[in-house]
Amino acid sequence: MDVQIEILYCGICHSDLHTVRSEWQNTAYPVVPGHEIVGRVTTVGGEVKAFKAGDMAAVGCMVDSCRTCPDCRENLEQYCQNALTFTYNSPDKHTGKMTYGGYSNLIVVDEHFVLHLPEKLDPAAAAPLLCAGITTYSPLRHWQVGQGQKVGIVGLGGLGHMGVKFAHAFRAHVVLFTTSPDKVEDAKRLGADEVVISKNPDEMRQHLNSFDFILDTVAASHNLDAYIELLKRDGTLCLIGVPDAPHPSRGGAKLIFRRRKMTGSLIGGIKETQEMLDFCADDGIVSDIERIPIHEINVAYHRMLKSDVKYRFVIDLASLKQETATALTGRKVLCRQNKSVDVQDEPICSCDWLSF
Amino acid sequence: MDVQIEILYCGICHSDLHTVRSEWQNTAYPVVPGHEIVGRVTTVGGEVKAFKAGDMAAVGCMVDSCRTCPDCRENLEQYCQNALTFTYNSPDKHTGKMTYGGYSNLIVVDEHFVLHLPEKLDPAAAAPLLCAGITTYSPLRHWQVGQGQKVGIVGLGGLGHMGVKFAHAFRAHVVLFTTSPDKVEDAKRLGADEVVISKNPDEMRQHLNSFDFILDTVAASHNLDAYIELLKRDGTLCLIGVPDAPHPSRGGAKLIFRRRKMTGSLIGGIKETQEMLDFCADDGIVSDIERIPIHEINVAYHRMLKSDVKYRFVIDLASLKQETATALTGRKVLCRQNKSVDVQDEPICSCDWLSF
Repeated sequence: MDVQIEILYCGICHSDLHTVRSEWQNTAYPVVPGHEIVGRVTTVGGEVKAFKAGDMAAVGCMVDSCRTCPDCRENLEQYCQNALTFTYNSPDKHTGKMTYGGYSNLIVVDEHFVLHLPEKLDPAAAAPLLCAGITTYSPLRHWQVGQGQKVGIVGLGGLGHMGVKFAHAFRAHVVLFTTSPDKVEDAKRLGADEVVISKNPDEMRQHLNSFDFILDTVAASHNLDAYIELLKRDGTLCLIGVPDAPHPSRGGAKLIFRRRKMTGSLIGGIKETQEMLDFCADDGIVSDIERIPIHEINVAYHRMLKSDVKYRFVIDLASLKQETATALTGRKVLCRQNKSVDVQDEPICSCDWLSF
Repeated sequence: MDVQIEILYCGICHSDLHTVRSEWQNTAYPVVPGHEIVGRVTTVGGEVKAFKAGDMAAVGCMVDSCRTCPDCRENLEQYCQNALTFTYNSPDKHTGKMTYGGYSNLIVVDEHFVLHLPEKLDPAAAAPLLCAGITTYSPLRHWQVGQGQKVGIVGLGGLGHMGVKFAHAFRAHVVLFTTSPDKVEDAKRLGADEVVISKNPDEMRQHLNSFDFILDTVAASHNLDAYIELLKRDGTLCLIGVPDAPHPSRGGAKLIFRRRKMTGSLIGGIKETQEMLDFCADDGIVSDIERIPIHEINVAYHRMLKSDVKYRFVIDLASLKQETATALTGRKVLCRQNKSVDVQDEPICSCDWLSF
């Protein structure tokens, strides 16, 4: 049931850097990050029905799950607790080894976890849809954001800029919250009807008790009460950024006195990811990106840490072949199977391994 | 539109003691607490249609609201932000004075905020339905708790014992969480299918990821994460006790990875309160109470602080007339209008004032 994909583009997600640095204390080195993968099918297994060689395809954050639990049966594989396998740095139940992600030339994935990439979409700009896109699309759909609703998006980064685009496409009145006054114009270009500088208490106060839904994309620990009190009765604050340290919140009373909800959402299921890609093709939505060659990865990480990217870096994997052929020539490297390989010419090894 | 009610019984809520001691820093003395009021209509204004002298009636936590905002129009007066008037210690927009509650012989309330007390219900045991009852009934109804669901109730006090009764009546599988092993048998008698000693991590662990809904009735600050992680995907933890200090919670990740919700709920609207009273009459549900005469109020407060009550104290207001006639004879007291009154015989003053 496997599909082999030649990777053309891979988006750079903040999770990649967390993992490279083992900031979640769970990285098994060597690690190959990348879970915003777009490419072309090169070959498929005999039982594969939905894909054939030459198809444009995509892979997101997951490559396997148990397929039988209630979560999987409801097409919410991202919540599978039995055998959820992430695209990288995750134990593969078939091989017992860790999975390797999209900073590479090839990936082999079970067809259930491979998406059809509509030909209409620019493949580089579509790559971030596989994580940043679905992570914002799914909660906006689940909580039925739409016309007549006032919707907040907190933070204008990789996730936030997709949240603005989707909430706007769903015809909500969109308010973007940012700490950066220099993002105001850009937020409006992306679809925000209003922009609030969240450090300004007067601006915040004008929106008290007025939001149906707020999607908080900020992973850094921050005061949630400031957003909870902007919700209407029965409004929802949804977190999608996982903080390293807890968010300070007095919570209780502000929830009780307006029956407000605080919740969270994780990526999206495979069925919904395909629905999102098709929606994006119909609506002309992609990510705003900066393309980089693979050798600029560390510069990209540093700029991402300073929020200096509009709004997602995407690696052009053609650069990896080139890199392999030039920078590594004459060196000895370890391939995926931990074999020492003399690099004389491309390809260095059939597994296309990239080291960090 | 006013209804005058001779108060027969008034339940003692923890809020009464918070207010008497000004623990919320908002008490305007003199204060007359009490918002679980049951009595008999003595007379009604000319335009009152729904009540007549002799009817059994009840009053809960609210006596007025704006009647025109979206919350009021949706029969959720408890969330009115314009003119919500609580039954005691709350500015009355008509008189400019503070409202006085149910530790008294008489109360006059606009008919919109007066409930019909079904004759089937024992009036003393029904009094706590007006706060403890509706505060647990409303969220269990709003989040559609019912058959096939596993529902947790945290804490077995005035609120918690009503939560167990209602969740059981709604045919959920009910699990009561308590820190007190000596409450296990009683919880089962009240309708709990299982009882978990929440201080025991092994017992808690057996219920990970299994609850559809948990109603947390505990006002004291406590670790919410221990309950959030017991919720299924898409499960809800609902807070109804307002803590003095914030509840510790790391929150974010535990919400995100199972799309769980944390929320709160405040009392219930007037329409729903009537629905609850009628449901209780049909289903034979009242509160488990201890009746006390008014002069035992301070003992009751002390016992309530030690959770030494099964499960609600209710003042028999017949004792107030007696008290007035005996204990105060020969003393000078201040009446509601701050007039000094020589107590020679009952009634001391037409306003039936009780001092703390």
